[in-house]
Amino acid sequence: MAFPEPLERLVRRLERLPGIGPRSAERIALHVLKMPREEVAELALALRDARMETRRCEVCGNVTLRSPCAICADETRDRGILCVVEGPREVASMEASGAFRGLYHVLLGGDAPREGGAPEPQALERLRRRVLEDGVREVVLATAPDREGEGAAALVRETLEGTGVRLTRLARGVPVGVRLEYLQGAVLAEAFEGRRDVES
Amino acid sequence: MAFPEPLERLVRRLERLPGIGPRSAERIALHVLKMPREEVAELALALRDARMETRRCEVCGNVTLRSPCAICADETRDRGILCVVEGPREVASMEASGAFRGLYHVLLGGDAPREGGAPEPQALERLRRRVLEDGVREVVLATAPDREGEGAAALVRETLEGTGVRLTRLARGVPVGVRLEYLQGAVLAEAFEGRRDVES
Repeated sequence: MAFPEPLERLVRRLERLPGIGPRSAERIALHVLKMPREEVAELALALRDARMETRRCEVCGNVTLRSPCAICADETRDRGILCVVEGPREVASMEASGAFRGLYHVLLGGDAPREGGAPEPQALERLRRRVLEDGVREVVLATAPDREGEGAAALVRETLEGTGVRLTRLARGVPVGVRLEYLQGAVLAEAFEGRRDVES
Repeated sequence: MAFPEPLERLVRRLERLPGIGPRSAERIALHVLKMPREEVAELALALRDARMETRRCEVCGNVTLRSPCAICADETRDRGILCVVEGPREVASMEASGAFRGLYHVLLGGDAPREGGAPEPQALERLRRRVLEDGVREVVLATAPDREGEGAAALVRETLEGTGVRLTRLARGVPVGVRLEYLQGAVLAEAFEGRRDVES
Protein backbone atom coordinates (compact mmCIF):
# COMPACT_ATOMS: atom_id res chain seq x y z
CA MET A 1 0.00 0.00 0.00
CA ALA A 2 1.25 3.45 -0.84
CA PHE A 3 -0.59 6.69 -0.06
CA PRO A 4 -4.22 7.17 -1.15
CA GLU A 5 -4.41 8.10 -4.85
CA PRO A 6 -4.93 11.89 -4.55
CA LEU A 7 -2.01 12.17 -2.12
CA GLU A 8 0.22 9.98 -4.29
CA ARG A 9 -0.71 12.07 -7.34
CA LEU A 10 0.20 15.29 -5.53
CA VAL A 11 3.59 13.83 -4.53
CA ARG A 12 4.31 12.90 -8.18
CA ARG A 13 3.35 16.39 -9.38
CA LEU A 14 5.44 18.15 -6.73
CA GLU A 15 8.48 16.02 -7.56
CA ARG A 16 8.58 17.59 -11.01
CA LEU A 17 9.25 21.04 -9.60
CA PRO A 18 12.87 22.24 -9.53
CA GLY A 19 14.76 21.50 -6.33
CA ILE A 20 12.05 19.22 -4.94
CA GLY A 21 13.11 15.61 -4.46
CA PRO A 22 10.92 12.65 -3.47
CA ARG A 23 11.35 13.28 0.26
CA SER A 24 10.47 16.96 0.15
CA ALA A 25 7.55 16.24 -2.20
CA GLU A 26 6.16 13.85 0.42
CA ARG A 27 6.79 16.30 3.18
CA ILE A 28 5.02 19.13 1.35
CA ALA A 29 2.11 16.88 0.31
CA LEU A 30 1.54 15.72 3.89
CA HIS A 31 1.72 19.34 5.00
CA VAL A 32 -0.95 20.28 2.45
CA LEU A 33 -3.35 17.80 4.09
CA LYS A 34 -3.11 19.78 7.33
CA MET A 35 -3.46 23.22 5.74
CA PRO A 36 -6.81 25.04 6.06
CA ARG A 37 -8.89 24.34 2.96
CA GLU A 38 -8.97 28.02 1.96
CA GLU A 39 -5.20 28.19 1.99
CA VAL A 40 -4.92 25.18 -0.30
CA ALA A 41 -7.50 26.72 -2.63
CA GLU A 42 -5.54 29.98 -2.65
CA LEU A 43 -2.27 28.22 -3.43
CA ALA A 44 -3.97 26.36 -6.30
CA LEU A 45 -5.40 29.64 -7.58
CA ALA A 46 -2.04 31.40 -7.29
CA LEU A 47 -0.45 28.68 -9.45
CA ARG A 48 -3.08 29.09 -12.15
CA ASP A 49 -3.05 32.90 -12.01
CA ALA A 50 0.73 33.12 -12.20
CA ARG A 51 0.76 30.90 -15.27
CA MET A 52 -2.33 32.26 -17.04
CA GLU A 53 -2.05 35.98 -16.28
CA THR A 54 1.63 36.63 -16.82
CA ARG A 55 3.50 36.68 -20.12
CA ARG A 56 6.87 37.63 -21.52
CA CYS A 57 7.42 41.21 -22.66
CA GLU A 58 7.91 41.05 -26.41
CA VAL A 59 10.57 43.77 -26.21
CA CYS A 60 12.80 42.88 -23.24
CA GLY A 61 11.65 39.34 -22.42
CA ASN A 62 10.83 40.09 -18.79
CA VAL A 63 7.80 38.57 -17.06
CA THR A 64 4.87 40.99 -17.20
CA LEU A 65 1.09 41.30 -17.14
CA ARG A 66 0.96 43.34 -20.36
CA SER A 67 3.43 43.48 -23.24
CA PRO A 68 5.33 45.70 -23.67
CA CYS A 69 6.06 45.75 -19.95
CA ALA A 70 5.81 48.86 -17.74
CA ILE A 71 9.57 49.45 -17.96
CA CYS A 72 9.75 49.21 -21.77
CA ALA A 73 6.66 51.44 -22.04
CA ASP A 74 8.06 54.08 -19.66
CA GLU A 75 8.97 57.06 -21.86
CA THR A 76 10.95 58.74 -19.08
CA ARG A 77 13.60 56.00 -19.08
CA ASP A 78 16.83 56.23 -21.08
CA ARG A 79 16.18 54.12 -24.18
CA GLY A 80 19.81 54.31 -25.30
CA ILE A 81 21.20 51.98 -22.64
CA LEU A 82 20.31 48.32 -22.18
CA CYS A 83 21.16 46.26 -19.13
CA VAL A 84 21.44 42.57 -20.05
CA VAL A 85 20.43 40.26 -17.19
CA GLU A 86 19.86 36.56 -16.87
CA GLY A 87 16.32 36.52 -15.49
CA PRO A 88 13.35 38.36 -14.02
CA ARG A 89 14.81 38.20 -10.51
CA GLU A 90 17.78 40.27 -11.60
CA VAL A 91 15.48 42.92 -13.10
CA ALA A 92 13.63 43.05 -9.78
CA SER A 93 16.92 43.49 -7.84
CA MET A 94 18.20 46.21 -10.18
CA GLU A 95 14.91 48.08 -9.95
CA ALA A 96 14.91 47.79 -6.17
CA SER A 97 18.40 49.35 -6.11
CA GLY A 98 17.18 52.36 -8.10
CA ALA A 99 20.65 52.50 -9.69
CA PHE A 100 19.60 52.08 -13.31
CA ARG A 101 17.19 54.13 -15.42
CA GLY A 102 17.67 52.53 -18.84
CA LEU A 103 15.91 49.49 -20.27
CA TYR A 104 16.54 45.77 -19.72
CA HIS A 105 17.09 42.73 -21.82
CA VAL A 106 16.31 39.37 -20.19
CA LEU A 107 18.17 36.32 -21.51
CA LEU A 108 16.03 33.66 -19.85
CA GLY A 109 12.39 33.71 -18.88
CA GLY A 110 12.49 31.34 -15.97
CA ASP A 111 15.35 29.19 -14.83
CA ALA A 112 18.58 31.03 -14.27
CA PRO A 113 21.54 29.44 -16.07
CA ARG A 114 22.85 27.84 -12.91
CA GLU A 115 19.61 25.91 -12.79
CA GLY A 116 20.28 24.31 -16.13
CA GLY A 117 19.00 26.95 -18.51
CA ALA A 118 20.96 28.75 -21.21
CA PRO A 119 20.18 32.06 -22.92
CA GLU A 120 17.27 31.61 -25.30
CA PRO A 121 18.39 31.95 -28.95
CA GLN A 122 15.42 34.20 -29.68
CA ALA A 123 16.40 36.43 -26.75
CA LEU A 124 19.85 36.90 -28.31
CA GLU A 125 18.34 37.61 -31.74
CA ARG A 126 15.98 40.19 -30.27
CA LEU A 127 18.90 41.81 -28.47
CA ARG A 128 20.83 42.21 -31.75
CA ARG A 129 17.75 43.67 -33.42
CA ARG A 130 17.17 46.14 -30.59
CA VAL A 131 20.78 47.29 -30.75
CA LEU A 132 20.67 47.72 -34.54
CA GLU A 133 17.24 49.34 -34.80
CA ASP A 134 16.46 51.19 -31.55
CA GLY A 135 19.36 53.65 -31.25
CA VAL A 136 21.07 51.82 -28.40
CA ARG A 137 24.39 53.46 -27.41
CA GLU A 138 25.50 51.08 -24.69
CA VAL A 139 24.86 47.53 -23.54
CA VAL A 140 25.77 46.79 -19.90
CA LEU A 141 26.48 43.14 -19.18
CA ALA A 142 25.00 42.36 -15.78
CA THR A 143 25.17 38.58 -15.84
CA ALA A 144 26.38 36.84 -12.68
CA PRO A 145 30.14 36.65 -12.09
CA ASP A 146 30.13 32.85 -12.17
CA ARG A 147 30.74 30.25 -14.85
CA GLU A 148 27.18 30.23 -16.22
CA GLY A 149 26.94 34.01 -16.14
CA GLU A 150 30.28 34.31 -17.92
CA GLY A 151 29.05 31.83 -20.52
CA ALA A 152 25.92 33.90 -21.10
CA ALA A 153 28.04 37.07 -21.34
CA ALA A 154 30.27 35.41 -23.96
CA LEU A 155 27.20 34.59 -26.06
CA VAL A 156 26.02 38.20 -25.82
CA ARG A 157 29.45 39.51 -26.91
CA GLU A 158 29.34 37.14 -29.88
CA THR A 159 25.79 38.19 -30.75
CA LEU A 160 26.69 41.88 -30.75
CA GLU A 161 29.88 41.50 -32.80
CA GLY A 162 30.06 44.02 -35.61
CA THR A 163 27.24 46.20 -34.27
CA GLY A 164 29.73 48.78 -32.97
CA VAL A 165 27.70 49.25 -29.78
CA ARG A 166 29.61 50.15 -26.61
CA LEU A 167 29.72 47.05 -24.41
CA THR A 168 30.38 47.46 -20.68
CA ARG A 169 30.05 45.27 -17.62
CA LEU A 170 29.27 45.94 -13.97
CA ALA A 171 32.28 46.80 -11.82
CA ARG A 172 33.77 43.93 -9.84
CA GLY A 173 35.14 44.47 -6.40
CA VAL A 174 34.45 44.42 -2.70
CA PRO A 175 30.69 44.53 -2.03
CA VAL A 176 29.60 47.33 0.29
CA GLY A 177 28.71 46.18 3.80
CA VAL A 178 30.65 42.94 3.80
CA ARG A 179 33.67 42.28 6.01
CA LEU A 180 36.77 41.42 4.01
CA GLU A 181 37.45 38.28 6.02
CA TYR A 182 34.29 36.69 4.61
CA LEU A 183 35.18 37.25 0.96
CA GLN A 184 36.62 34.64 -1.36
CA GLY A 185 40.14 35.20 -2.62
CA ALA A 186 38.92 35.71 -6.19
CA VAL A 187 36.81 38.67 -5.05
CA LEU A 188 39.82 40.31 -3.43
CA ALA A 189 42.00 39.56 -6.47
CA GLU A 190 39.53 41.34 -8.74
CA ALA A 191 39.23 44.22 -6.28
CA PHE A 192 43.02 44.67 -6.31
CA GLU A 193 43.19 44.45 -10.08
CA GLY A 194 40.48 47.10 -10.46
CA ARG A 195 41.79 49.41 -7.71
CA ARG A 196 41.37 53.13 -8.22
CA ASP A 197 43.22 56.25 -7.15
CA VAL A 198 41.78 57.95 -4.14
CA GLU A 199 41.03 61.55 -5.01
CA SER A 200 42.73 63.87 -2.58
CA MET B 1 9.35 47.10 -8.87
CA ALA B 2 9.02 43.53 -7.71
CA PHE B 3 7.48 40.75 -9.83
CA PRO B 4 4.02 41.21 -11.36
CA GLU B 5 1.31 40.66 -8.74
CA PRO B 6 0.26 37.07 -9.65
CA LEU B 7 3.89 35.93 -9.66
CA GLU B 8 4.64 37.73 -6.38
CA ARG B 9 1.53 36.16 -4.84
CA LEU B 10 2.64 32.69 -5.92
CA VAL B 11 6.10 33.23 -4.40
CA ARG B 12 4.51 34.27 -1.07
CA ARG B 13 2.25 31.21 -1.06
CA LEU B 14 5.08 28.81 -1.91
CA GLU B 15 7.27 30.25 0.85
CA ARG B 16 4.78 29.00 3.43
CA LEU B 17 5.38 25.37 2.48
CA PRO B 18 7.82 23.38 4.64
CA GLY B 19 11.42 23.40 3.45
CA ILE B 20 10.84 26.11 0.84
CA GLY B 21 12.74 29.33 1.47
CA PRO B 22 12.42 32.61 -0.43
CA ARG B 23 14.98 31.59 -3.08
CA SER B 24 13.44 28.24 -3.87
CA ALA B 25 9.95 29.79 -3.86
CA GLU B 26 11.13 32.24 -6.55
CA ARG B 27 12.81 29.48 -8.48
CA ILE B 28 9.70 27.29 -8.44
CA ALA B 29 7.40 30.22 -9.31
CA LEU B 30 9.53 31.19 -12.31
CA HIS B 31 9.56 27.55 -13.38
CA VAL B 32 5.75 27.46 -13.20
CA LEU B 33 5.60 30.28 -15.76
CA LYS B 34 7.38 28.03 -18.25
CA MET B 35 5.35 24.91 -17.58
CA PRO B 36 2.67 23.88 -20.09
CA ARG B 37 -0.67 25.30 -18.98
CA GLU B 38 -2.23 21.84 -18.60
CA GLU B 39 0.52 20.79 -16.22
CA VAL B 40 -0.05 23.83 -14.03
CA ALA B 41 -3.77 23.13 -14.03
CA GLU B 42 -3.10 19.52 -13.04
CA LEU B 43 -0.79 20.53 -10.21
CA ALA B 44 -3.44 22.96 -8.93
CA LEU B 45 -6.07 20.22 -9.15
CA ALA B 46 -3.81 17.72 -7.37
CA LEU B 47 -3.41 20.18 -4.49
CA ARG B 48 -7.15 20.60 -4.12
CA ASP B 49 -7.92 16.90 -4.52
CA ALA B 50 -5.30 15.82 -1.97
CA ARG B 51 -6.75 18.26 0.57
CA MET B 52 -10.45 17.81 -0.16
CA GLU B 53 -10.61 14.06 -0.87
CA THR B 54 -8.40 12.65 1.87
CA ARG B 55 -9.16 12.51 5.57
CA ARG B 56 -7.81 10.97 8.76
CA CYS B 57 -8.94 7.48 9.72
CA GLU B 58 -10.95 7.91 12.93
CA VAL B 59 -9.49 4.67 14.30
CA CYS B 60 -5.76 4.75 13.52
CA GLY B 61 -5.25 8.37 12.39
CA ASN B 62 -3.70 7.45 9.04
CA VAL B 63 -4.48 9.41 5.86
CA THR B 64 -7.26 7.75 3.93
CA LEU B 65 -10.08 8.28 1.44
CA ARG B 66 -12.69 6.63 3.67
CA SER B 67 -12.79 6.23 7.44
CA PRO B 68 -12.17 3.69 8.85
CA CYS B 69 -9.26 3.09 6.48
CA ALA B 70 -8.74 -0.07 4.43
CA ILE B 71 -6.27 -1.44 6.99
CA CYS B 72 -8.52 -0.86 10.00
CA ALA B 73 -11.47 -2.33 8.07
CA ASP B 74 -9.54 -5.44 6.99
CA GLU B 75 -10.97 -8.30 9.07
CA THR B 76 -8.11 -10.63 8.10
CA ARG B 77 -5.54 -8.58 10.02
CA ASP B 78 -4.51 -9.31 13.60
CA ARG B 79 -6.47 -6.80 15.68
CA GLY B 80 -4.59 -7.66 18.86
CA ILE B 81 -1.32 -5.98 17.88
CA LEU B 82 -0.84 -2.27 17.21
CA CYS B 83 2.22 -0.77 15.53
CA VAL B 84 2.69 2.84 16.67
CA VAL B 85 4.33 5.02 14.01
CA GLU B 86 4.95 8.71 13.64
CA GLY B 87 3.25 9.37 10.31
CA PRO B 88 1.57 8.10 7.15
CA ARG B 89 4.95 7.58 5.42
CA GLU B 90 5.94 5.04 8.03
CA VAL B 91 2.69 3.12 7.51
CA ALA B 92 3.43 3.06 3.78
CA SER B 93 6.98 1.75 4.39
CA MET B 94 5.79 -0.94 6.82
CA GLU B 95 3.10 -2.07 4.42
CA ALA B 96 5.59 -2.17 1.55
CA SER B 97 7.83 -4.45 3.66
CA GLY B 98 4.95 -6.88 4.19
CA ALA B 99 6.45 -7.65 7.63
CA PHE B 100 3.45 -6.65 9.74
CA ARG B 101 -0.12 -7.91 9.66
CA GLY B 102 -1.60 -6.13 12.66
CA LEU B 103 -3.12 -2.64 12.84
CA TYR B 104 -1.43 0.77 13.08
CA HIS B 105 -1.68 3.82 15.23
CA VAL B 106 -0.42 7.09 13.70
CA LEU B 107 0.79 9.75 16.11
CA LEU B 108 0.91 12.67 13.66
CA GLY B 109 -1.16 13.32 10.58
CA GLY B 110 1.34 15.28 8.60
CA ASP B 111 4.65 16.67 9.70
CA ALA B 112 6.97 14.13 11.24
CA PRO B 113 8.34 15.18 14.65
CA ARG B 114 11.71 16.11 13.17
CA GLU B 115 9.84 18.68 11.12
CA GLY B 116 8.57 20.45 14.18
CA GLY B 117 5.49 18.38 14.99
CA ALA B 118 4.79 16.47 18.17
CA PRO B 119 2.36 13.60 18.77
CA GLU B 120 -1.20 14.90 18.74
CA PRO B 121 -2.78 14.69 22.23
CA GLN B 122 -5.96 13.24 20.73
CA ALA B 123 -3.88 10.55 18.98
CA LEU B 124 -2.47 9.50 22.35
CA GLU B 125 -5.93 9.49 23.95
CA ARG B 126 -7.30 7.37 21.12
CA LEU B 127 -4.39 4.95 21.54
CA ARG B 128 -5.16 4.48 25.23
CA ARG B 129 -8.83 3.92 24.45
CA ARG B 130 -8.02 1.36 21.74
CA VAL B 131 -5.73 -0.54 24.12
CA LEU B 132 -8.33 -0.55 26.89
CA GLU B 133 -11.40 -1.32 24.78
CA ASP B 134 -10.31 -3.28 21.70
CA GLY B 135 -8.57 -6.33 23.16
CA VAL B 136 -5.06 -5.23 22.22
CA ARG B 137 -2.36 -7.64 23.47
CA GLU B 138 0.74 -5.84 22.28
CA VAL B 139 1.81 -2.37 21.23
CA VAL B 140 4.99 -2.22 19.08
CA LEU B 141 6.82 1.10 19.24
CA ALA B 142 8.10 1.83 15.73
CA THR B 143 9.04 5.47 16.15
CA ALA B 144 12.34 6.59 14.64
CA PRO B 145 15.53 5.90 16.62
CA ASP B 146 16.33 9.61 16.95
CA ARG B 147 15.66 12.27 19.56
CA GLU B 148 12.19 13.20 18.29
CA GLY B 149 11.19 9.58 17.83
CA GLU B 150 12.43 8.71 21.32
CA GLY B 151 10.44 11.65 22.67
CA ALA B 152 7.30 10.38 20.97
CA ALA B 153 7.98 6.86 22.29
CA ALA B 154 8.32 8.22 25.83
CA LEU B 155 4.91 9.91 25.51
CA VAL B 156 3.38 6.64 24.32
CA ARG B 157 4.88 4.73 27.26
CA GLU B 158 3.44 7.35 29.64
CA THR B 159 0.04 7.19 27.93
CA LEU B 160 -0.15 3.42 28.29
CA GLU B 161 0.94 3.29 31.92
CA GLY B 162 -1.30 1.07 34.01
CA THR B 163 -3.02 -0.56 31.04
CA GLY B 164 -0.94 -3.71 31.46
CA VAL B 165 -0.49 -4.06 27.69
CA ARG B 166 2.74 -5.65 26.44
CA LEU B 167 4.94 -2.89 25.04
CA THR B 168 7.71 -3.80 22.60
CA ARG B 169 9.92 -1.91 20.19
CA LEU B 170 11.55 -2.75 16.87
CA ALA B 171 14.95 -4.43 17.15
CA ARG B 172 17.96 -2.16 16.80
CA GLY B 173 21.06 -3.29 15.02
CA VAL B 174 22.93 -3.47 11.78
CA PRO B 175 20.56 -2.85 8.85
CA VAL B 176 20.61 -5.56 6.20
CA GLY B 177 22.48 -4.62 3.01
CA VAL B 178 24.64 -1.86 4.45
CA ARG B 179 28.43 -2.13 4.78
CA LEU B 180 29.62 -1.74 8.35
CA GLU B 181 32.12 0.96 7.45
CA TYR B 182 29.26 3.33 6.55
CA LEU B 183 27.44 2.98 9.88
CA GLN B 184 27.59 5.45 12.73
CA GLY B 185 29.25 4.31 15.93
CA ALA B 186 25.96 4.42 17.83
CA VAL B 187 24.46 1.87 15.42
CA LEU B 188 27.33 -0.53 16.05
CA ALA B 189 27.17 0.08 19.80
CA GLU B 190 23.49 -0.91 19.83
CA ALA B 191 24.21 -3.90 17.62
CA PHE B 192 26.88 -5.13 20.07
CA GLU B 193 24.64 -4.55 23.05
CA GLY B 194 21.82 -6.54 21.48
CA ARG B 195 24.02 -9.33 20.10
CA ARG B 196 22.51 -12.80 20.01
CA ASP B 197 23.87 -16.31 20.23
CA VAL B 198 24.36 -18.01 16.94
CA GLU B 199 22.44 -21.25 16.91
CA SER B 200 24.76 -24.07 16.08
